[in-house]
Amino acid sequence: MKVQIYDLYNPVFDKKKIDKLQINGWIKSHRNNNLIGFIEFNDGSCFKNIQIVYKKEIDNFDFLKKLTIGTAIYVIGKYIETPNNKQPFEILAEKIELIAECDVDYPLQKKKHNFEFLREISHLRVKTNIFNAINRIRNSLSIAIHTFFQENNFIWVHTPIITSNDAEGAGNTFKVIAENEKNKIINFFGKQVCLTVSGQLHVEAFALAFRNVYTFGPTFRAEQSHTTTHASEFWMVEPEMAFCNLEENMILIEKTLKFCVNYILKKCKNELYFLDNLNSGLLAKLNVFLKSEFKVIEYSAVIDILLKAKENFSNKDIKWGMDLQKEHEKYIAEKVFKKPVFIINYPKEIKAFYMRLNDDNKTVAACDLIVPGVGELVGGSQREERYDFLKNRMEKIGNLNDLSWYLNLRKYGCCYHSGFGIGFDRFLMFITGVDNIRDVQPFPRTYNNIKF
Amino acid sequence: MKVQIYDLYNPVFDKKKIDKLQINGWIKSHRNNNLIGFIEFNDGSCFKNIQIVYKKEIDNFDFLKKLTIGTAIYVIGKYIETPNNKQPFEILAEKIELIAECDVDYPLQKKKHNFEFLREISHLRVKTNIFNAINRIRNSLSIAIHTFFQENNFIWVHTPIITSNDAEGAGNTFKVIAENEKNKIINFFGKQVCLTVSGQLHVEAFALAFRNVYTFGPTFRAEQSHTTTHASEFWMVEPEMAFCNLEENMILIEKTLKFCVNYILKKCKNELYFLDNLNSGLLAKLNVFLKSEFKVIEYSAVIDILLKAKENFSNKDIKWGMDLQKEHEKYIAEKVFKKPVFIINYPKEIKAFYMRLNDDNKTVAACDLIVPGVGELVGGSQREERYDFLKNRMEKIGNLNDLSWYLNLRKYGCCYHSGFGIGFDRFLMFITGVDNIRDVQPFPRTYNNIKF
Repeated sequence: MKVQIYDLYNPVFDKKKIDKLQINGWIKSHRNNNLIGFIEFNDGSCFKNIQIVYKKEIDNFDFLKKLTIGTAIYVIGKYIETPNNKQPFEILAEKIELIAECDVDYPLQKKKHNFEFLREISHLRVKTNIFNAINRIRNSLSIAIHTFFQENNFIWVHTPIITSNDAEGAGNTFKVIAENEKNKIINFFGKQVCLTVSGQLHVEAFALAFRNVYTFGPTFRAEQSHTTTHASEFWMVEPEMAFCNLEENMILIEKTLKFCVNYILKKCKNELYFLDNLNSGLLAKLNVFLKSEFKVIEYSAVIDILLKAKENFSNKDIKWGMDLQKEHEKYIAEKVFKKPVFIINYPKEIKAFYMRLNDDNKTVAACDLIVPGVGELVGGSQREERYDFLKNRMEKIGNLNDLSWYLNLRKYGCCYHSGFGIGFDRFLMFITGVDNIRDVQPFPRTYNNIKF
Repeated sequence: MKVQIYDLYNPVFDKKKIDKLQINGWIKSHRNNNLIGFIEFNDGSCFKNIQIVYKKEIDNFDFLKKLTIGTAIYVIGKYIETPNNKQPFEILAEKIELIAECDVDYPLQKKKHNFEFLREISHLRVKTNIFNAINRIRNSLSIAIHTFFQENNFIWVHTPIITSNDAEGAGNTFKVIAENEKNKIINFFGKQVCLTVSGQLHVEAFALAFRNVYTFGPTFRAEQSHTTTHASEFWMVEPEMAFCNLEENMILIEKTLKFCVNYILKKCKNELYFLDNLNSGLLAKLNVFLKSEFKVIEYSAVIDILLKAKENFSNKDIKWGMDLQKEHEKYIAEKVFKKPVFIINYPKEIKAFYMRLNDDNKTVAACDLIVPGVGELVGGSQREERYDFLKNRMEKIGNLNDLSWYLNLRKYGCCYHSGFGIGFDRFLMFITGVDNIRDVQPFPRTYNNIKF
């Protein structure tokens, strides 16, 4: 019977049914003497390994003894319960065949490697325990997001990657070009196009038809940045809800994040336990997060607090209208409130054109979520649904031409609506405790770096 | 009590609990006389509309009478069962408030619009019934794919969009560039990069660690094509399995497609029923597909069949080694076998460099699935896992430099493995019966066209 490790650890799977067990996989470690050999074995189907035991009586004992880490093998054997051992079972091999050898220069020998080294072999690093854990959690977090939004009757929209507008008006986009056979640039789309920085504007059109929608996919920023939290390509989750105001928006943000953390705590126990061992306090941090009630505070009130504490900051020039810097946000979330904090109603000058102008004519209905130890994790807002207000702001920015369709949405039953964006990779960094974005992405793309 | 239409049609939802029903949504159609008005109403949460009834006694009867299609309103009312009517219930309004007006130039008045016209208003067309149906099915088909692969213990991998290799060696990629403030191109990544045409090569690295993986996301082709089946940006599903040969690959392809079709038949009954009304025979076609056993035939045998039937084709120059054209594939699937057909073992010269060379030294272990009425829906292969064979082919093509990491994977326990790619948008066209790819994508990008 062909099985996978996943089956063997599955409590529902009936191990009594296994007659001749057949399994394919890779050697993770290997020790032996002249009578017996022990192979730590993984077939990729499960975070946990199993142990394969072979004895002198096996046909090719001397050949097997020489097999090295990384080798792919095919095993026929018996499933044996070992209730008194560390592992609940092992496989006693009757036959082991070589599938594919592993070269002697295999860089992942059984010793600790640092992240920098492993980044240079991104195609192989997924075979290590830590990248096994991180990427399994990445998968589960992605599915947590779909599960949450689908259960709440949201429609997933595949907003386009190639676009002719840069949403935020922030610049720093990658341009997309096409060439003819002679490598001459051709005007493929009839206008200049770039890689999207956000699916929000497109997904708003869908919210005004389907009420609750989300986009979840890659976004791009051409920043020449070498920090640990910026990548040129990263994934965003951007829900958008019709008939939803700023307050309801914040309730949904909190529900979304807590659902996802809870989901990972349940689904990825082994992976989190492994990471908690490397980075003590991870599980405790996640449980505190789950229990915390998020605080809501006005931007103006934040400025008052910062003014009174300005000796703490390298930037002491605190005044209303300023963009909050990392140290300021950190202080508010980590020192003052010691929990996740929504800062709301920012000055309109420092926020995007599509955010709804408040009645004070000075602030917009934005909400940024600051999380201790992470910084800004979510940015959201109620959108400007009033045609004249939006037109006014777009004229000032000068993006009216390319986005006339977006303004046009405001003419036809455009109700109040809100949405937010979660930086998926940063959220994953928070959950795994990994502190460089290059280590939570399968093949990271950063300034000056695209080896794979 | 705040509700959505989705709740009201949900058999599990307890309607007895509703006291004062509150609902937000849009007017789909509206008729009235001097005593009573009927609003066909949708809040985006459900494919089906509901009916709102208001009577002369309501406060603002004369105001309400003038409300037009597309207007957003807020309704307080009573849920009333109407077992003798076409609809099982209606809402008797006690209060109706205006949320947002709809301009008189609203282009979606109650009449039939053709697809060409609707493509010019992609931001609004989602408010029509047909795009409502198509996009709900698009969402459900996406989730069907995740459900199938997650249930089978596959890991979703976010392979990169920006890449320095073009996978197939087929050319026709979009280039990605960055500029400085003076609009001068800068060497952002240190090499030339483009938009991915496939996540396969990257996802193979993950299959060799996680066994069963898939990538599901956008891919790009810079073809100056005006056909109904080509777009510059489209979604692909690309599973990759370690310890999997060509035969097992085909079994999985068939299971994947049938699972998805079955999922849509169950989850999107109303949407499919609506589309079947427009395009009679759709449901019958899907049910036939589910019941058909896929045929497997060698490329060489296909050539023999075509040789005997060459009078049927505009291209009569049939010979071994040729690339099959649409008319040939159509003939094989629709005339000869009348069901989905896997064509396997193609000449190596017409297939990609990564496909496994067969023992005949002439063909590779490829499998293309041809479906009646659609053409090629899936392309798959067993991959070349042997270092020397792969190196040899890569040297001939000349892509050894950029893909040295891919070749390098073959050194370290690289087992036999296989995978396939489903063109998601074409699959969606098959399921919805929509015959232009521009109408199944949220905001299509095609040659010379990127209005939104």
